[in-house]
Amino acid sequence: MKSIPVLLIGCGGVGRQLGIALRVVGICDSRSLLAVNDIVNLELKDDLLKEICKIKSSGSSLSSLMDLGQCQIFKDSEARKKVIDIASLLGRSTGLVLADCSASSETLELLKQGIDLGCCIVLANKKPLTSKIEEFDKLTSDFRHIRFESTVGAGLPVIASITRVLSSGDPICRIIGSLSGTLGYVMSELEDGKVFSFVVKEAKRLGYTEPDPRDDLGGMDVARKALILARLLGQRINLEDIKVDSLYPDNMGPKSISVDDFINHGLPLLDKEVGEKVAVAASKGNVLRYVCMIEGSRCQVGLQELPMDCPLGRLRGSDNVVEIYSRCYKNSPLVIQGAGAGNDTTAAGVLADIVDLQDLFK
Amino acid sequence: MKSIPVLLIGCGGVGRQLGIALRVVGICDSRSLLAVNDIVNLELKDDLLKEICKIKSSGSSLSSLMDLGQCQIFKDSEARKKVIDIASLLGRSTGLVLADCSASSETLELLKQGIDLGCCIVLANKKPLTSKIEEFDKLTSDFRHIRFESTVGAGLPVIASITRVLSSGDPICRIIGSLSGTLGYVMSELEDGKVFSFVVKEAKRLGYTEPDPRDDLGGMDVARKALILARLLGQRINLEDIKVDSLYPDNMGPKSISVDDFINHGLPLLDKEVGEKVAVAASKGNVLRYVCMIEGSRCQVGLQELPMDCPLGRLRGSDNVVEIYSRCYKNSPLVIQGAGAGNDTTAAGVLADIVDLQDLFK
Repeated sequence: MKSIPVLLIGCGGVGRQLGIALRVVGICDSRSLLAVNDIVNLELKDDLLKEICKIKSSGSSLSSLMDLGQCQIFKDSEARKKVIDIASLLGRSTGLVLADCSASSETLELLKQGIDLGCCIVLANKKPLTSKIEEFDKLTSDFRHIRFESTVGAGLPVIASITRVLSSGDPICRIIGSLSGTLGYVMSELEDGKVFSFVVKEAKRLGYTEPDPRDDLGGMDVARKALILARLLGQRINLEDIKVDSLYPDNMGPKSISVDDFINHGLPLLDKEVGEKVAVAASKGNVLRYVCMIEGSRCQVGLQELPMDCPLGRLRGSDNVVEIYSRCYKNSPLVIQGAGAGNDTTAAGVLADIVDLQDLFK
Repeated sequence: MKSIPVLLIGCGGVGRQLGIALRVVGICDSRSLLAVNDIVNLELKDDLLKEICKIKSSGSSLSSLMDLGQCQIFKDSEARKKVIDIASLLGRSTGLVLADCSASSETLELLKQGIDLGCCIVLANKKPLTSKIEEFDKLTSDFRHIRFESTVGAGLPVIASITRVLSSGDPICRIIGSLSGTLGYVMSELEDGKVFSFVVKEAKRLGYTEPDPRDDLGGMDVARKALILARLLGQRINLEDIKVDSLYPDNMGPKSISVDDFINHGLPLLDKEVGEKVAVAASKGNVLRYVCMIEGSRCQVGLQELPMDCPLGRLRGSDNVVEIYSRCYKNSPLVIQGAGAGNDTTAAGVLADIVDLQDLFK
């Protein structure tokens, strides 16, 4: 059985299937690294991984683990140094996967060093791919050694499909998508005549939004996803080049008012304007969607009126949808649709990425 | 630049991109093989490939090529022997791709020998994968050496997506899809109140059907696609185990009446029954779709009533749609939709498959 060594940054998970074993040699949180003593032969056992999941779910640090067995904890700068040691030992010799499931921008340097040491990279973390274009170039310099499906639409095969279309020599001229389950839900509820402030509160109650709903309503998360797709299509742009429409004004930002203030007093002030936009769209037989649009040298994120009878217009609830237009998919797009968020689907996407890299492992 | 040797069975095509060159060393039609003299170093030049496309489009044989340059024509049993020679020379040493874009069941033995000789296999041809389960097992014994995206939904990433979901450890419990552009078109036209015989004639006029529309209406082409998907999910069944509903009765089969007779006299006799089925579905707010359904140990192909507001129910025109249900995609399926037929998309799928195999080439 082929054995793939993996070093997880920011989450736990293991799979045994298809004649492949994942050998998890270490796992990091923001402060510590837990690694097996014998990096070449040992692995983190399933029982220990389950224990780690419990500890992390409860909000504790890896370093609070009691029974370490054949493992060791490294902290702060020592942890960073140890990751590089492991990458040096297993990178070129085995193709070690560095799997970054954090939401941190601080992993970038580590990942770049990993690449230089021959590691494969799998990302659920958008930050490393959405910093400067030079960093993106560096990370993707050998495209066969990196996968990042879970950065856009969680486990949905959006990036895999775009890569397939591009590698078949079929030029993609346009991508338009609804890449936020939260904003997808909000938009389709508005269409039913509900009031903006009520819908956002309801979305928060259902757990669809971040603790501060402005993190969703501001559009920056969608902008990061759009940037990754735009760069895949060859646009050499940075995050600040993307026109992002926020659904709340600057004077309701986190620096001006608290979350509670925003929800209870800010949001209702927006109801009239949003309601009018929805009504204007409806009067033309259209619906409003919060989309990312990538076309030619354009990349923008915001509200758009769309016909009811296109895949994006028909979207209901929190599903993600991506429409891809190319030479082969000219009049009728290639459409990928499904749940685009959640721990399960994100983890599934990471695992599928690791398995997809298997031919590179020795 | 990495160079991938390819031997095409049944079509022409070449791509240069992504730092990869395809080196087409030979091309077969049903009777002949055209191969370069120096298999290790030469390739079929683009000009010659274009000439071949012209000749084949006009219905002529490869052997009618006039200026062969540094190539040679082999015929019948000699052609077969030469393919094996090439596979022996380039299989294990380079990972030679045998690309089968024919519609023949006679390539199976060649492909099996190719596998034994270390070749990679890329199929647009459904026949080899839909013969006995033992043959499927043999062809897919090393799943990393075979790709067959274009056998289902042309270039649509149906199989790639299913493979990703499975390799992430997410069990697929159900696939339901409309995999015939022809029958998709017929069904959505019927929904608009048009008459069956008129719609089929119109589909034939538009070039949506095979020369004998019964090849589409009988459902066997959909059954072959369903069989490939069912086997991917682990069902150990053969073509004869699939329940296939034909849209015409036995006594209107090709052995009983001619194509013209069927179109002019047979089809109108079916209008009443089909019209009634459409009306019954509509009376319940449903629509009729010709679908393949794979669930548990079931695999069937035929007409089904579906709600108007599911992806399959909303389908219009000749697009293919596949809904995939799994643990991660439980309530709301993963949906892939787009053009599922055509030379361009089929060729694009074959090319993407070849590029996807690149890590196996030396």
